[in-house]
Amino acid sequence: MRTAFIDDLNRVTDGLVDMTRLAGSAIGRASIALLDGDIRLAEAVITSDRDIDQAREALDLLAIDLLARQAPVATDLRVVVTAMRMSADLERMGDLARHVAKVARLRYPDSAVPADLRGTVVQMGQVAERIVAKAGSVIASRDLEEARALEREDDAMDELHRELFSHVLADNFGHSTQTAVDLTLIGRYYERFADHAVSVARRVTFLVTGDYDTVVDREDEEDAVLTS
Amino acid sequence: MRTAFIDDLNRVTDGLVDMTRLAGSAIGRASIALLDGDIRLAEAVITSDRDIDQAREALDLLAIDLLARQAPVATDLRVVVTAMRMSADLERMGDLARHVAKVARLRYPDSAVPADLRGTVVQMGQVAERIVAKAGSVIASRDLEEARALEREDDAMDELHRELFSHVLADNFGHSTQTAVDLTLIGRYYERFADHAVSVARRVTFLVTGDYDTVVDREDEEDAVLTS
Repeated sequence: MRTAFIDDLNRVTDGLVDMTRLAGSAIGRASIALLDGDIRLAEAVITSDRDIDQAREALDLLAIDLLARQAPVATDLRVVVTAMRMSADLERMGDLARHVAKVARLRYPDSAVPADLRGTVVQMGQVAERIVAKAGSVIASRDLEEARALEREDDAMDELHRELFSHVLADNFGHSTQTAVDLTLIGRYYERFADHAVSVARRVTFLVTGDYDTVVDREDEEDAVLTS
Repeated sequence: MRTAFIDDLNRVTDGLVDMTRLAGSAIGRASIALLDGDIRLAEAVITSDRDIDQAREALDLLAIDLLARQAPVATDLRVVVTAMRMSADLERMGDLARHVAKVARLRYPDSAVPADLRGTVVQMGQVAERIVAKAGSVIASRDLEEARALEREDDAMDELHRELFSHVLADNFGHSTQTAVDLTLIGRYYERFADHAVSVARRVTFLVTGDYDTVVDREDEEDAVLTS
């Protein structure tokens, strides 16, 4: 019974790590599609979001089956419930990558990102890829130091988001309202992507320490970028 | 045992209905704060989001306790797991109301919404209040017809969102980039608020029918408003 339970839990953990890889691939390809105006890549990201949705569904069914068959209590129960929350975060990260790809598709054959803002958006894409890879690593290792380090990536994302907004709102912005709207949404998608990665890391921290206060949505702690 | 379980489940349902009331009050007050540039109301919404977060935490702890003590299976298990997902939707609706209030606070003593767009935003606020009230009613009644009717409110929200964007992107928009950015974010907050209400209604439908395909995030079905 106990061995079967541990096997099941390992399958859940593996499933979560797989989801971080899918989400990482999605945001990486969506960023290229966005910056290069690559419609085929954009379409591929949009289509493959279904894989992330299905991975989540499979993982949740496994978790529910595990609850029904094993009736875990205490820490074991907490692990299973937390896994279901992490799968929701990771599915949402996939959705946000798809949103970025949709903006790319919409502006094809142009890029939604003007040349003078390319550098900022390139970096946002890179931080997004790094933070989701780190989330996968934290899920596998349950290392609290790694979980804390991940938050520094989110700080970097917030800084880039602020930078993006300061360009959009500058007197010399010099692009259309459409571009301002696109950049506003893109910035929000990347920021939320990173927030969900933080959420995953905090749920792991909660599992290890049992301290529920660590599980606070990143947005609840800070004023939105716009207010700073 | 069974009676105790049903009592617990009723407490969970009552807790969810209470959360819809809190989220409804939050979005209603946030809308007034936004439209009238009412800083005190904005502050009140921002502060009271904590109540929704705490309601969710209490509800989730009750659900976990219920899983541990009663080890439900089959439909009973599904009800408890689904309740935890609904509480996540409702908490997020509270966050989105807080975001609207933050935009209001940021633009005080002005309103973020120019006079010529006021009518559209007023309606978005009204639809948001109606849809969350209906979500509460669906949770309590488990009425599938009511659940379907709720989706028509979401269609109305999408239509208003499109209308808002067409104003922002019109040649004669005539307001600042800051206003375009504010309206882009406000539009997204209201749209996502309604999406989460749909999600609640679909989870109820899933509980009644057992058909998992009904539980699809509203955003997964449709192109974002921007692409239409």
